[in-house]
Amino acid sequence: MKPTFSLRLRVFNLNCWGIPYLSRHRADRVKRLGDFLNMESFDLALLEEVWSEQDFQYLRHKLLPTYPAAHYFRSGIIGSGLCVFSKHPIQEFTQHVFTLNGYPYMIHHGDWFCGKAVGLLVLHLSGLVLNAYVTHLHAEYNRQKDIYLSHRVAQAWELAQFIHHTSKKADVVLLCGDLNLHPKDLGFRLLKECTGLHDAYLETRDFKGPEEGCTMVPENCYVSQQELEQFPLGIRIDYVLYKVVSGLHISCKTLRTTTGRDPHSGTPLSDHEALMATLCVRHSPPQQNPSPTHGPTERSPLISVLREAWTELDQGMAQARWWATIAGYVIGLGLLLLALLCVLAAGGGVREVAILLWTPNVGLVLGVGAFYLFHMQEAKGLCRARAELQHVLGRAREAQNLGPESQPALFLGQQEGDRAEEQ
Amino acid sequence: MKPTFSLRLRVFNLNCWGIPYLSRHRADRVKRLGDFLNMESFDLALLEEVWSEQDFQYLRHKLLPTYPAAHYFRSGIIGSGLCVFSKHPIQEFTQHVFTLNGYPYMIHHGDWFCGKAVGLLVLHLSGLVLNAYVTHLHAEYNRQKDIYLSHRVAQAWELAQFIHHTSKKADVVLLCGDLNLHPKDLGFRLLKECTGLHDAYLETRDFKGPEEGCTMVPENCYVSQQELEQFPLGIRIDYVLYKVVSGLHISCKTLRTTTGRDPHSGTPLSDHEALMATLCVRHSPPQQNPSPTHGPTERSPLISVLREAWTELDQGMAQARWWATIAGYVIGLGLLLLALLCVLAAGGGVREVAILLWTPNVGLVLGVGAFYLFHMQEAKGLCRARAELQHVLGRAREAQNLGPESQPALFLGQQEGDRAEEQ
Repeated sequence: MKPTFSLRLRVFNLNCWGIPYLSRHRADRVKRLGDFLNMESFDLALLEEVWSEQDFQYLRHKLLPTYPAAHYFRSGIIGSGLCVFSKHPIQEFTQHVFTLNGYPYMIHHGDWFCGKAVGLLVLHLSGLVLNAYVTHLHAEYNRQKDIYLSHRVAQAWELAQFIHHTSKKADVVLLCGDLNLHPKDLGFRLLKECTGLHDAYLETRDFKGPEEGCTMVPENCYVSQQELEQFPLGIRIDYVLYKVVSGLHISCKTLRTTTGRDPHSGTPLSDHEALMATLCVRHSPPQQNPSPTHGPTERSPLISVLREAWTELDQGMAQARWWATIAGYVIGLGLLLLALLCVLAAGGGVREVAILLWTPNVGLVLGVGAFYLFHMQEAKGLCRARAELQHVLGRAREAQNLGPESQPALFLGQQEGDRAEEQ
Repeated sequence: MKPTFSLRLRVFNLNCWGIPYLSRHRADRVKRLGDFLNMESFDLALLEEVWSEQDFQYLRHKLLPTYPAAHYFRSGIIGSGLCVFSKHPIQEFTQHVFTLNGYPYMIHHGDWFCGKAVGLLVLHLSGLVLNAYVTHLHAEYNRQKDIYLSHRVAQAWELAQFIHHTSKKADVVLLCGDLNLHPKDLGFRLLKECTGLHDAYLETRDFKGPEEGCTMVPENCYVSQQELEQFPLGIRIDYVLYKVVSGLHISCKTLRTTTGRDPHSGTPLSDHEALMATLCVRHSPPQQNPSPTHGPTERSPLISVLREAWTELDQGMAQARWWATIAGYVIGLGLLLLALLCVLAAGGGVREVAILLWTPNVGLVLGVGAFYLFHMQEAKGLCRARAELQHVLGRAREAQNLGPESQPALFLGQQEGDRAEEQ
């Protein structure tokens, strides 16, 4: 059993909007962010959308005296955009790149090229093991007709799985990031139900920031007003989430959010608002632990959200297979056309036209071939997530039917159960 | 502390060589494999190169009475080829797809299309948590000039990291698979040093199989004799590796390997030999635990292998950047040529030739563009692995300098240390 103690953790999270050449006042904002982080001296600063490694290196140099440990998570072609600065030594770090992350031919959206991921840091603080995760999920470009919905649900699922499998020895789990999910969205509910994480905004009694905790607000001069047309107050898509094992108690003492302006003066630090949370962890007898135990009556929301996610992934799979089939037909037609052009070039009177059309047609077949392979891969990725989800759903149902006496250790809450046994 | 008990685990591993249309006698071999697995009734059968999901479904149906639990790990375009059959219920499963896995334009090698991965199963047996991993690393096509070496080293590193981060609550860790690494290869030494896994072939006192434990032997009629030209006895690239936490003792009672023939009659089951291990786990007081504790004197091999791997990844990174630079120049030239062709087409006397060359040139620029992006991604992936490795190397050096009294918890052996504290 851990001795009685108290741990205070000050955490900073910001999606920095650091797209080289595209994001306005980037250099100035990065400079001011560095000044702010140095002044505030948080325990952990977790940043997203630091797309330029030069920006990270600049911050690393600037923050070195206050935050001696730092890491940039590299992935994809551009990078994950994720990085961390820590006042305390980082014991270990690793990352998981999401299997599904948009489409390579949607170049104007660009997510596919980034290699969106979740980064993990392991820290040892006051004798406790803290697993801190930072992530950034696929953006939402059109809420009414969201072609990336199944990808984002699959990412939320992989995120939950990654946290579950890598945090089994952690005393404190912290997840920060831009989830690109509203609080009631399927992906967010799935993540919360599957991990048992608490939302700092909902848990704290001392919140200061925009109404409803919004992290993209119309007051911010960098935010496109058109995007927030349907949400006059703004949207909440950036989060600080946490949980502890049985025998510990965690609370969010304060949560502060910037309000569309620089914390001190000038333009905002980003198009997103920064989250600043003060978390307190203290010893607590296991029976008094308010963390969710997910008894059978509480498991229904899990089963219901798993079912909903299963349906979404299944629809995504059908869609991916449909695209692959269409591509297959186009490839067949292209090959037929190629054969016809060969015949025409060999003898007919339209030899020049045939030769002229041959190369674009080869290009078409190759391009559609790549499209076909991509959607086959997409279908496989969604099928994998659906199979994993189905397994957990089956076990959740089993556990519900068996009742509390004979519940097997489940995906959910297993960590808490195991810890309770040890203590 | 776990009570005194004994657990006997019979494990089967085989690379099935199940390439549709290409692997000889596939259907017959899969059928005989099913019969054999049913007859032997292992606790766990871990298979690689089951490329066709139909083969998996056939085996699943056939093995259902003996192995009620099964899972196929889907990834990439073709699939990971990995699947498992278990006599005991599978509590959880997940997978990690390797970041680097060859080149898409090496179509004749095909590894890139497979999405090579490591699959994880969590089983609860006799009150113990067993994490069983199955994997298949990138093939080696030319040992003298191995263009995939840095990718395979990066895969071995990711494999070690995945095992480390996901097995922190496991009592028993088992890794089976075709590593495509010889016992003295850098990747294998890296994996062993970083995870502390034991090699069943080296540990057992009762081994029956080909000399030196080879798992690809010239006696096997499916093996290309040319490939084994330099290795008259064959090569050992398939493994059963294991470890337990402090307080437990594991031993490999027997290890059997097929010898290039069907275990009973007819042609062999595959071009690889099957491994059949009987493992015994029993309670053992922590002080008598022979598992490696990786004290400072024992850490030098770790530091040395980490250094070697760092150099290999660094060279791979330089190579990837070199290719990206070359591609950059070709793209520049292609764009210049495109501009020139536009000028010629607009006015010159060679208008037809210019128009004819325009489309292939666009194709060239796009193709080399994809090549450029791919190698940028490769460089990023290698850079990521190198950064992770460097962090562990730094901490290993620190630990060595500080001596045994003040060693911080390290990447390696942390699990053992933590467990010892708990017990």
